[in-house]
Amino acid sequence: MPNRRTAALAEAIAASRPDKDPAAMRAARIALVDFLACALAGSTDPSLAIVRGVFGNAPGRALVIGSAQPADPFLAALLNGHAGHVLDYDDVHASVRGHPTTVIVPALLAALDSDALPTADAFLAAYLVGLETMAHLGRAIGPAHYERGFHATATLGPLGAAAAIAHMRGFSARTTAIALGLGATQAAGLRLQFGSDAKPLHAGLAARNGLVAARLAEAGLSGADDCLDGENGFLQAYGFGEAAPERVLEGWAAPWQIVRPGLTLKAFPCCTAAHPVAVAGLAFHREGIRDLARATITFPPGGDAALVVRTPRTGIEARFSPEYILAAALVDGAVRIDHFDERPVRPDLAALAVRVERRHDQAARRLSSDPSTRFVVVELTDGQGRTHERRIDGLPGLAVADDKFRDATAGSEALRPVPDLVRTMHDAMDLARLLACLAQPRQP
Amino acid sequence: MPNRRTAALAEAIAASRPDKDPAAMRAARIALVDFLACALAGSTDPSLAIVRGVFGNAPGRALVIGSAQPADPFLAALLNGHAGHVLDYDDVHASVRGHPTTVIVPALLAALDSDALPTADAFLAAYLVGLETMAHLGRAIGPAHYERGFHATATLGPLGAAAAIAHMRGFSARTTAIALGLGATQAAGLRLQFGSDAKPLHAGLAARNGLVAARLAEAGLSGADDCLDGENGFLQAYGFGEAAPERVLEGWAAPWQIVRPGLTLKAFPCCTAAHPVAVAGLAFHREGIRDLARATITFPPGGDAALVVRTPRTGIEARFSPEYILAAALVDGAVRIDHFDERPVRPDLAALAVRVERRHDQAARRLSSDPSTRFVVVELTDGQGRTHERRIDGLPGLAVADDKFRDATAGSEALRPVPDLVRTMHDAMDLARLLACLAQPRQP
Repeated sequence: MPNRRTAALAEAIAASRPDKDPAAMRAARIALVDFLACALAGSTDPSLAIVRGVFGNAPGRALVIGSAQPADPFLAALLNGHAGHVLDYDDVHASVRGHPTTVIVPALLAALDSDALPTADAFLAAYLVGLETMAHLGRAIGPAHYERGFHATATLGPLGAAAAIAHMRGFSARTTAIALGLGATQAAGLRLQFGSDAKPLHAGLAARNGLVAARLAEAGLSGADDCLDGENGFLQAYGFGEAAPERVLEGWAAPWQIVRPGLTLKAFPCCTAAHPVAVAGLAFHREGIRDLARATITFPPGGDAALVVRTPRTGIEARFSPEYILAAALVDGAVRIDHFDERPVRPDLAALAVRVERRHDQAARRLSSDPSTRFVVVELTDGQGRTHERRIDGLPGLAVADDKFRDATAGSEALRPVPDLVRTMHDAMDLARLLACLAQPRQP
Repeated sequence: MPNRRTAALAEAIAASRPDKDPAAMRAARIALVDFLACALAGSTDPSLAIVRGVFGNAPGRALVIGSAQPADPFLAALLNGHAGHVLDYDDVHASVRGHPTTVIVPALLAALDSDALPTADAFLAAYLVGLETMAHLGRAIGPAHYERGFHATATLGPLGAAAAIAHMRGFSARTTAIALGLGATQAAGLRLQFGSDAKPLHAGLAARNGLVAARLAEAGLSGADDCLDGENGFLQAYGFGEAAPERVLEGWAAPWQIVRPGLTLKAFPCCTAAHPVAVAGLAFHREGIRDLARATITFPPGGDAALVVRTPRTGIEARFSPEYILAAALVDGAVRIDHFDERPVRPDLAALAVRVERRHDQAARRLSSDPSTRFVVVELTDGQGRTHERRIDGLPGLAVADDKFRDATAGSEALRPVPDLVRTMHDAMDLARLLACLAQPRQP
């Protein structure tokens, strides 16, 4: 009998009813507010103006977040995905080892038919199905995929986005399987782009590619219906021998992946892998330790794979430098958006960052999609020659995102209702109200 | 010192002058006529109507081959790439292990500025630089890339297309390097789509992705300038340990790859790997052998990786079935476009095809990008119990494509001047004339 893993996943996507799970739906609302905070704050980034300039005005009816000017759905998905990720402030999921919401939500927004909106609950349910799919694929593809150079946000994203659209638009299991295959065959994105504008572009491309996959499948383009099966399948081609295909369906929705292991909302606008370093640095600052003679950061094997920069030249590169982030936390007692913009890094922080070293604890478990494998130990010798140590385990979980939304959209009165709208929306009219509120220009 | 392979390739792309090489330029003209034959014949395929329906009318000024209606350049690149590959009748290059022209030419056409056309010679030269880049990357990435499931047309295509545009538009070496990186980070396409509409779509996506890469680099988006260097580079991520990065520049333009090993123009509208099978079958037919009791086709190891179908249901699947192709050649004495359309396969051919087996000659050299590793042996027992054997080595080379153009565009009087226009064009006005001639609807 041929391997039927793709068909089984497609059946699960079509049949799932996350709207029956109040905990999952509550979490989806928090995730959406957090994503919108990031996308609205990111929507004025100069890189987005470059992208929009290249693609022209591409007229259409799809929402471009933070803009009064709608666009062609494919361009809108690209711009919104890019905007959501450009500050590297958006959520992360350990099973994905990447950023799911900034791919899935832009794809869903672009797939809305403005003449026949789904209910807000159906929209959120579709998001949860997309996240569940992307997280399960992340567990199944194994740790080598990321370590060998792939950006999982970009590679798994088209499948997660296609799954979400398939659910929202009620595709049959067979059409869903073809949409997954068309997503898999557009899976691309290399980590070597971390620290450049191309990293957030990856999220936008993944959102657009997921939309392309779903739309072509819906329109009847023929494609493989078995992308997760067989020796030339997606997991084999991208898994480097470490894929575990049986995990694709294992534990589906029991509980939903947004509930456990849960989505991580970022407290700092920099790479998640450096978050524990920031937490340790801020704790030192509070204790009055505000400089360093030397420091060592210890990761599990593979734990700093995303942290590709040691001596950043600009704030954008610095998002991926734990050395810089430790320095910023110690000196400023904060890790803020303005630490990570396109300007050259501050000389005082650069001077401290070069005194920081990294090591791996080879006795520890290799970092994987299991969040319990994550830890960081910061050992620091201060200016007086005293040594300090702090260990941070795991990843923070979901928190209410209202404060972050307010900070990220400061001064934009018109956007103030968004968190309440998201928290209370249920029917199609509620969703229409939210879309109207988001279609307002965000002032830089 | 950091690895400077990307920079060296970018410098070679910027500095190359293939227009100084008459043999290469002559070959480029033949390749262009052959591509246009395929794209014009393919432009009426039903799958293209599906794609155009999904992307809407996307207005713009870029040529859609065989249509009087121009489109947005990104959509035009996608449609023209798809059209050129949809019959699987377009050229193949052994170093690429795939189809270069149907990616590079559509990207170049879409990158033309209709207010400031380059000369026709500059257009052809840019094509040659793109082909040289794609072929060198194909040699460098090694055979495992294809065998493990990647469609090299789609994965190497964005880099080749970006290189061609960079040359045509006179990018600096640094901008060219960034364009290559933006191409590499969009490299996608799985062989599991062979036999479906998604295979020609891959060529279109690769053309569009190369255009996206070049345009974003030109507009100043930041990106990695070292995609071929380092342990997380493109060749490592996609090479499965068999990449030979030193081959990226080895033998650059000495001679041009279009001259040696040369482009293969297809004589039959089916997968190249089955061409020797068709040649053997047609020879048997000419000798009066027109049925079979049983047959065995012997390939070198890896030689039938592209031939993913054993018992095709439709003509489209049959493009990848040497069993079917042998049967068609024996019975009909021809291997024609109408053997490979979307209808179910003929029962008489299907009945013969199931009597054909495949084997690998494990003593032979593994099929690689070296064309001398290619061979096929067909052993056949006919209805009278007599056995026959034929061996075909290598791949056919470049031939004049005028006959194929005439056949592929039969009945379209307005297109008749195209081969002559291509053969004699040199300046910008000549290129304008060709574009005008191609912007005519092709009747199905």
